[in-house]
Parts: sequence; C-alpha cells; structure tokens
Amino acid sequence: MQNKQLKLAARPNGMFKASDFNLVVETVPELSDGQVLVQVIYLSLDPTQRIWAQTDSYLPAVKIGATMRSFGLGVVQQSKNDHFNEGDIVSGMTGWQDYLVSDGKGLEKLPRIPGVPLDAYMGPLGMTGITAYYGLLDIAAPQTGETLVVSGAAGAVGSIVCQIGKLKNLRVVGIAGSDDKLEWLTTELGVDAGINYKTENVYKALRKAAPNGVDIYFENVGGALLDVVLTQLNIGARIPLCGYISAYTATEQTPGIQNLSVLISKRAKIQGFLVLDYYDRALEAVQEMASWMAQGKLSYKTDIRQGLEHTPTIINDLFTGGNTGKLLVQVSPEPS
Amino acid sequence: MQNKQLKLAARPNGMFKASDFNLVVETVPELSDGQVLVQVIYLSLDPTQRIWAQTDSYLPAVKIGATMRSFGLGVVQQSKNDHFNEGDIVSGMTGWQDYLVSDGKGLEKLPRIPGVPLDAYMGPLGMTGITAYYGLLDIAAPQTGETLVVSGAAGAVGSIVCQIGKLKNLRVVGIAGSDDKLEWLTTELGVDAGINYKTENVYKALRKAAPNGVDIYFENVGGALLDVVLTQLNIGARIPLCGYISAYTATEQTPGIQNLSVLISKRAKIQGFLVLDYYDRALEAVQEMASWMAQGKLSYKTDIRQGLEHTPTIINDLFTGGNTGKLLVQVSPEPS
Repeated sequence: MQNKQLKLAARPNGMFKASDFNLVVETVPELSDGQVLVQVIYLSLDPTQRIWAQTDSYLPAVKIGATMRSFGLGVVQQSKNDHFNEGDIVSGMTGWQDYLVSDGKGLEKLPRIPGVPLDAYMGPLGMTGITAYYGLLDIAAPQTGETLVVSGAAGAVGSIVCQIGKLKNLRVVGIAGSDDKLEWLTTELGVDAGINYKTENVYKALRKAAPNGVDIYFENVGGALLDVVLTQLNIGARIPLCGYISAYTATEQTPGIQNLSVLISKRAKIQGFLVLDYYDRALEAVQEMASWMAQGKLSYKTDIRQGLEHTPTIINDLFTGGNTGKLLVQVSPEPS
Repeated sequence: MQNKQLKLAARPNGMFKASDFNLVVETVPELSDGQVLVQVIYLSLDPTQRIWAQTDSYLPAVKIGATMRSFGLGVVQQSKNDHFNEGDIVSGMTGWQDYLVSDGKGLEKLPRIPGVPLDAYMGPLGMTGITAYYGLLDIAAPQTGETLVVSGAAGAVGSIVCQIGKLKNLRVVGIAGSDDKLEWLTTELGVDAGINYKTENVYKALRKAAPNGVDIYFENVGGALLDVVLTQLNIGARIPLCGYISAYTATEQTPGIQNLSVLISKRAKIQGFLVLDYYDRALEAVQEMASWMAQGKLSYKTDIRQGLEHTPTIINDLFTGGNTGKLLVQVSPEPS
C-alpha cells in the first residue's frame, strides 16, 4: 500500500509555497504489535500550522524532511492495538499524508453521535469547538448583556465563538473580511452587527456596532485590529488571545501595538491560551456543544477542498480570508 | 491666610513645562460647617499625573484653570467637621497648593505608628505601597521560586515590588537606568540581579539575569522594554501592567509592541490595574507592610524636594529617571 506524504522541504517565508514541501510516496510498512494503520479522511487546516512549519513555539518546529504536522481525522484500517478496532473513526495528529502508522498515543476514538456528520468532529465537536468554548467561557467569563467582539468571526473558531456568545445572551459583533461572510453571521448565526474590516473604518464602525463599548474581544487576528479595539474597551474588559493571524505570514515587521496602556485605565487583560491546556476538560465542552447542535442552536460550516497535493496552497486561504468556516482537505472518502 | 496654587494653564506636550501652569495666590476662605482646612506638607509626584493633565482616562482630565490634581499629605489646621481634629495628619487629593479646604470626603486620617516617619505614608504605607502590594500579590499571585522582573525597579512602586518579591522567595531582577540605582537595589534591597537598560543590551542581560525565564514581569515602563521581556516569558507568565511611563511624555508615536503573540504560546497574560480598585483592601496591605518595616524587612527611599513653585519641573524627573524611590515635594515643614 502506497502512502503519499507532504514533507517539509523549506521553512516558509510569507505565504506557503508549493515548493516548501516535497510530495513523497512510500510503501506503508507492516504493522508491529501495538500499532494501528489509519487511513486519513480529513486534514484540519489551522493557522497555527504556519507557526509549526517555521519555528519552535509551544511545540517544536516540524523538522525539515519530516511529514508536515497536522490535526486530522481518519478510519482505522488495521489494528494490532487492543484499544482500536478496524473501522474506528479517530482523530489526532495525522500529518499531511494518506496513511498514518501510529502506536495509538494521541489518537482519540471518536464517539459517533447519530445524525452528526464526520466533519463536525473537525469543527464544533473537535479542537476548533473546544478552543472557542473555553477561550470564551473560561478566559473571558462572559456576563449576560455584555458586548462581545470577535475578529476572524467567519472563521472556524470565530463562528463558534459568535454563537456561544449569543447563547450566553451577549451582544455579539463580528469582524470579517467580506460582506458574504457578514451576511452569514448576521442572518444565519444571529450575530447582532458585523464589520467588514476591508471596506469600513473599523474605529467608526465599532463605535456604532458596540455603542456601549467592548467588554470582551475574542482575538484571532491581532495587529491593527487589536490596536483599534483597545481604544473602545470598557472597564474590566477581557481579551482572550486565541490567534494572531495578521503576523503569521508577514515578511516585514508589521506596525506594532500602540494602545496597550489603556489596559491600565480600563483594568483590562489580554490573556493567551492554547486548546491543548483544555484537553482534560474536552468532554464537557463537546457534550454541551453536541446538545446545542441537537437543539438547532449551534450550526457550523465546513469548507471542504479535495486533494492532498494541493494542501500547501489551500492553507493560504486561512491568511487571505479565502475560507468561511472550518477549512478541511479531504484525503479519502468517508466510509459508507 | 494666603494660598499659593499651581493651576493648569495648558495641556502639556512632551515633558511638563513651567509655562503649563500659573502660580496663583488666593486668600483662604472662611470654613463653612463641615469643612476642614488642611496645610499641605508633602505632594506625591506620580507618573499618572502626566495623564491627568492631558486627557480623560480613569479620572476626568484636570480642567484648564483648575488647581493641578495631586495626592498629598497634610495637617488639619482648622476643623468644622466632626470627623477631623486640629493636628490630624491626613492624606488625599490635596492638589498642588499650600492649603486645601475640603468637606472631608476622600480625606483619610492617618493612623500614626510610633517610629514611622511621615513620608512613609507617601511610600510603602500609602498609595505607592498598596499599588506594589496588590499589583504583585493579587494580579500576579507569585509562587515560591519563580522569577520576577521589575521595570522602573528603583522607582517608588518598583522598589517596594522588588522587596515584596524577595519576601515571597522569588528570584528578583530589577531593571533601572543607572548603576547607582542598581547598586542600591542589589546591595540594600536584596535584589538578585540588576540590568541597566541605558547601557546594557537588555535581551542578553535578561538571558543572564533570568536564566530560567520570566514568570512575572511587573511593568512600570512599557514600550521597547516590554517587547524584549515578552521574548523571555515562561509558560503561564503574568504581567501586571502598573504603568507605561515610556509613552506618557512621548511627542511622537513610539515603536509599537511586536511580540504580543507570544502570549498565546506561553498562555500568558498582561493585566492592567489601578490602586483605586483596592482601596477597600488597603488596610490589610498597610498592616502587613508596617509589620515588615518594623521587622526591618522592608525599607524605602524618599527623594524629597523643596518648593511648590518648582513642582512642574521636578515632576519631569519621573520621566527621565532623575529620582530614586518616591519623589515628593515638601510644601511646609512637618509638625514638630
């Protein structure tokens, strides 16, 4: 059995380029005792992968020559591991490849919920959803009636944050880069007001959209947007810092943050977090989100693209605003 | 009785200038029922006064033509208020003037502790000390063995923070702008290592001084220093944001903060705070600090200057590093 893999060939500079990766085909080795063979179905494309490809951070950088690290979902094809059976649907660090041979560590067997499609486990019921859930509820501890502003609001995490915000009775303002995205947020997800940061003066638009000021700013973007929102914080404001996508593909120094001192007069905080610190509380989040989904109170969008070999360019859509909702690459068909 | 006052004549641009104030002499009015007359002894000079003179913030800007707002300490000369007696030592918003007529609101009668000089109430046993105490203990919640870095370490608040850090068994690194200040910090206050930000490469010096990384950064300065320290945070680091003095007198845009995204990988936070939110817990802090002082575990320095009329230029020393410890202006002699 042949395994197509994308191996990191060069540290990216700016956007990913196809030439940053080598497409390598290798024969899948025989399983040893304790191992499982997973056929990858979906690759999760996440902004943090741009960091993994470049530098040591909360995880070591992907080594040059190694298969690109990626969260993903697949089906167990063969198992010599007591914890997994053929046909199990699993998620974990699959990498950018067709097949994963694993000792099972870090692989999570997914509890299939009737009526819930597989891609939901890459969205609200997976890492994406847990990020949104704890970033908002744990870091920001929202109170009824507060104003929540979300950047990257039409993205995978942002769109879930917006909806949890509405479920918690917040006024929700979404910032996104196209009118189509804002249309989706306001008409389908119940977001109260939208701001197109590409066409509007964000300062003025935010004054209108958040007339009582900003209590919570869920930040996926950073940079200039953050600097503007800082000027409109309320006393006691919380800024969960989830991502800083504006800097990930920058090739030159971006304008730095000028308005940080307002954190003092507003007794406000900026707090970074990583979903990996919440894995022990993942089940609680997934259960509540599954219940919201069953009640029709939480919806999601996946933007599914085809073709492992195109992944290095598809992922750039995360940085140009080319996706709505969760961006996935489908590597093999879902099992019937 | 004549009252000399400094009234704000113009919004400052950059450093304070003498011409930003008018020296006005007015006759002290007769007291009405409920009022007290306070003769000011010490004016507390604080970086936040630069903000008060310029713009609305957590307090409204001082109005043009009004006496400059200032914390201070004085003695009650006459009282038609049941809560105050002649000879009481009080602190509160005295303003930059010789005499204050007050209805008593916001005036605090100071509990005189035998052996404690008056100026201590402007330092560790006053707003300065409470700021240091809760900024470190409440916002940062230090754990034994952690590394604490303090900017403005030889300043009024910073020098208290350093000592509380040592009392809590932290490794303490002080950043200051002269070798004399660092000498005082390391030989007299027990600070473990000092960095002269004016003569040293802070990045390299901090690598040496905080070889295990930075768990807490008590920030009085902001700007370029903050950007460097951000690169050396440990996981779970806390940055109590007390002041941002680098920006207060800037006349041009200063370089913005570039490294904020490390807050994500380090799950770190920057949290602004104001001492005024801790007034209801002030007594607890003052009692513990008085006890530390009595045991010889907490010392302080006051930098006492003379002459109300020179206050507008004396205060600039806060922004150029011209003071060590608490900067005060003495307006009248201490009562014997």
